[in-house]
Formats: sequence, C-alpha cells, structure tokens
Amino acid sequence: MPVLEDVYPSRRGDHPEFIDRIDPVVYGTPDTPGPLTSAQLASYAENGFLAIPSLFDPQEIEQLDSEILAWTGSPEIQGMEGTIVEPGSHAVRSVFQVHQRHPLFGRLARDLRLLDAARQILGGGVYMHQSRVNLKPGFSGKEFYWHSDFETWHVEDGMPRMRALSVSLALTENYPFNGPLMLIPRSHHRYVSCVGQTPADHYKQSLRKQEYGVPDPESLRALTDRGGIAAPVGPAGTAVFFDCNTMHGSNSNITPYPRRNVFFVYNSVENRLQEPFCGLAPRPEHIASRVLAEALEFRPHA
Amino acid sequence: MPVLEDVYPSRRGDHPEFIDRIDPVVYGTPDTPGPLTSAQLASYAENGFLAIPSLFDPQEIEQLDSEILAWTGSPEIQGMEGTIVEPGSHAVRSVFQVHQRHPLFGRLARDLRLLDAARQILGGGVYMHQSRVNLKPGFSGKEFYWHSDFETWHVEDGMPRMRALSVSLALTENYPFNGPLMLIPRSHHRYVSCVGQTPADHYKQSLRKQEYGVPDPESLRALTDRGGIAAPVGPAGTAVFFDCNTMHGSNSNITPYPRRNVFFVYNSVENRLQEPFCGLAPRPEHIASRVLAEALEFRPHA
Repeated sequence: MPVLEDVYPSRRGDHPEFIDRIDPVVYGTPDTPGPLTSAQLASYAENGFLAIPSLFDPQEIEQLDSEILAWTGSPEIQGMEGTIVEPGSHAVRSVFQVHQRHPLFGRLARDLRLLDAARQILGGGVYMHQSRVNLKPGFSGKEFYWHSDFETWHVEDGMPRMRALSVSLALTENYPFNGPLMLIPRSHHRYVSCVGQTPADHYKQSLRKQEYGVPDPESLRALTDRGGIAAPVGPAGTAVFFDCNTMHGSNSNITPYPRRNVFFVYNSVENRLQEPFCGLAPRPEHIASRVLAEALEFRPHA
Repeated sequence: MPVLEDVYPSRRGDHPEFIDRIDPVVYGTPDTPGPLTSAQLASYAENGFLAIPSLFDPQEIEQLDSEILAWTGSPEIQGMEGTIVEPGSHAVRSVFQVHQRHPLFGRLARDLRLLDAARQILGGGVYMHQSRVNLKPGFSGKEFYWHSDFETWHVEDGMPRMRALSVSLALTENYPFNGPLMLIPRSHHRYVSCVGQTPADHYKQSLRKQEYGVPDPESLRALTDRGGIAAPVGPAGTAVFFDCNTMHGSNSNITPYPRRNVFFVYNSVENRLQEPFCGLAPRPEHIASRVLAEALEFRPHA
C-alpha cells in the first residue's frame, strides 16, 4: 500500500471531478541557476508549458534523427519489450527507455540545455522517470488522445506529487498538419479525476490506445473554454517543456511528413515513486523507472 | 459499357502511375460573368483550389449550422441510407444529398456566391453531382485519407472528364488543429492511376474508410515534394473551391471543436455521367446524381 496519502485520487468513482492542484509548478527560486529567463519561467508557471524554437542546431538533430531511424528500423527493435506498434498496423509508434538503450540519447538526456532547465523548474536534483521516442510515421500515424501524464504516473506508477516535467524535442519539423503536440494552456492548475478502475497490465494496451484514465469530454471542454489549445510548431531542434499535469494530445498524421520526437521525463529526486495508488503491481522498469532511479540521478556536470 | 474512351484509367493494373491531365482547369472565358476576379481564377487554375475567407456572414451560417445540428441529431437521420457513421462509433460522419433533403441547403446550393463561381470556373451550365455535410465531431472525428474525388467519380460513377469542382463551406471555425481540409497545391495537373480493382458495392465501406482508389505513398510524396500542403483555415462562412482532381484529405479531430462543413459538387452539364468505367453498377442516386441530373440543372437566376 502507498505510504503517502493519495491527494490526487482518480479511477475510483463513477463521475469525473476537478481537484485543485496543491503543488507548485516552478519549484526553483530566482537564485536557482539554469538557462531559462525569469520571463520564461513565469510563462511556464502560468501556461503549463514553454516552447523554445530551435533549441538545438540542425546538425545536432540530423545525427540523432538518422540514428533513431536506423535503430527503430532494425528487426531486433520491432519485437523488443519497450517497442509499441501503431493500432491497426506494424509500424513502430514508440520506443521506450531510449536514454539507457542508446548512447546518443543517454548523452542527450544529460545535455545541460534540457537537464539544467529541468533542474531549474523542479528545484534541484532530478532523475529520468521515463524516456521514449514517438515516431508518428507519415501516412499512418494515429492520434494520442488527451491525457494528463501525471494522472497515469500517479495511479499506475505511484508518483506522489506534481513535481515532474516532460520535454519533447522535435527530430523532424513539426507542422500544424502532421499531428503536432497540442496542449491546453493553464490546464495544469486543475487535476481531472477520471472514472473507472485500472485493469491489471493496463500498460500493454494503454500505450497503443488509452482506455482508462481518459478525461471526460465535459472536463476537456471546460479546460479548453478557459485556455484554448496551443500547438507549438517549429523546425527540428525545437523543444517544448511541459508540466506533468498539462492536458495534451495529438491528432493523426496522414501527411508524408513523419513527426519524430524524443520525450524525456524528469522527476524530482524529492518525488520518488511509491507503490501505485491503484493498488496494482507497478509497471515495468522501462516505462517507469523505479529500481534504477537512485543510480541514475542525473548530475548536471557529470 | 461506357460510350466514351477511358482517358483516365485507374484500378486496372498492379502498379500506380501518373497520367497528365488533358483537360482545362478553368473553362470559362474572361467574359464569363461571375463573382471571381481574374486573379482568383488564375490562382485556382495554378493551384487547384481557392479559399475565400468569410464568403458568408456569421448570421447566415449560424442558422444553417443550428439547423444541420438539429437535423443530423434526429433519430430518423441516423438510420437513413445517405447517413454514414464514423468507423468504430455511431457518431454521424456524413449525410448525403442535403440539397434535396433539406430546403435550407437546397437554397444554399443555388446561392449565387457559390453557383455563379462554379459556372464561371466550369464554363456555363452546371448541376449537382453530389452534396453532403461532413460533421467531423469533436473528440472522435477520424481522418479522411488522401484522394482525388475525380478518381472515384470517374471509375465508380462514370464521370468522363475533369470538369467538376467541389466547394466546402465551413459551418464552424476551421482551426489548424480540428482536422481542417488539406490540399496538395498543383496536384490537379496530374492524375494518379491507382492499383487494384473495385469490389461491388464498394461505396458501402469506402465512405467510412476508403480501401480502393487509394493513391500510393510514393505518388503522394512526389506531389507534396512539388506542391507542399495547404490547409486553409478561417471562421465559419469560409469557402474553399477545389478542382475535382486536387489531391486532398484531412486528419482526425480530438479537440472539443467540431469541424462541420457542407460540400457541394458542381459538375458541368457537358460532362454528364456515363456508365461507370469500372464496369460495375452505378452507385446510388444519393451519392452520384444520375436520374435527377437533368431536372436539377441549376439556373443561376431561377
């Protein structure tokens, strides 16, 4: 059983509800060193995300992208445990734990442009809760329905509080029409407690198509009525940092332009995983780092 | 059997190919009366489409949209022959033959802002080949994969030549993120001859999810390499006229904002349907007007 009180209950009842966030968004103080300006931090705190166009140079990205293309196209990746295929096809949709499985992405995860920004927002030491590439291939990439990452990480992984963030780094250009990440500005201030229970081994299905922990249409409408929808676009190398409770998703991609992105999830070392709040067994290590978290505490100047 | 030569063969072989268009795009002369300027006509001829933001006033559209909402929500519409539901749900995706089934849309189809523009482009008398509303509901609207309308109308309906156009009129705001119409500029100059054969009664499936007459990825890539992708957006009342051979499609819509559009397809009276070039029985009247075409020749000042 969890050792901490469940302050963000979800998947317990038969009606959805909003729960006000009781955690800070930016944990660092103005004195915490890092690459983000105070205006950027204020915008992140207010909106729940921050897009930085061309944070990485085209040459850096080109190497990462061609590497990931070759790697995810190789036969051994296709059948690997951390590989998820598209619903209705065998096209690779996501590969997990890339920062441990590929040295280039291990280095990228420790790049100070990402890591120090995460440390600045989360206020000190962080580790990698989850990493993945999403390939959203051209012609056949399917949507990711709206979700708060935190809802799943809390219920299924036992993440106690909202003190984590994702960064999505574009490996190909993100256009308005190739299924870019959409975020609901200011949605991170409220937690949508979802209906239903979590089935055992839910992750085997949910990473292809989520069916539990799905926010209801009325709550989503309330959030977009207030905040609208933002869909940052930009060339390869553009980064979007977003809070663990920011509601986000993406549409399908029938264009010939693949939308490949790397996602790194940094969690504060003060916010380590407990037993899952749904009472089931934890998800495997490659989806939610638990065993290796201590050893992998990221040090900015390592 | 068709009485005319098949100058645009498709679904006959096992490899796709490009066939150069041998028909004009704009049939009217500079003297043909109509609302479009010569610059607009030139742009249409070059790109294969023309977007006119706010061609209709918000008040006009509000009435049409609330009417269509009430109408398509009624139980008798759900089971009607011309009603298509979304793949994987019972949400209404499209309703056909709206210009004959609803008087407001009958009037709209004869509105001179649409009809005279169609006459100007197609060079004289036109009739309604097909009409429909696409609802693309919020949260669950699925994609329409890339297609040239003409390919289907030629093969399955016996439309001999490229002398037809569609106009899509937005009943709700079209944003970049709620699955707007995407067009490949300049794609109308070349015809993609598709692989495979047409099964009987193909339309019963194809209107939900097309499986034959689907252009191949390489041809699509060649078209976007040359023309890119345009996705005109704008408030309700925005109209997009596009040529019958312009490659187009749209992505899914997980946003709360429905994307409701009316489509009218005007065909030249000089281009009446023959027997289908695939050799099968024609599709029903509500999808491709044949029996009623003569009676319904549209007269601009009727």
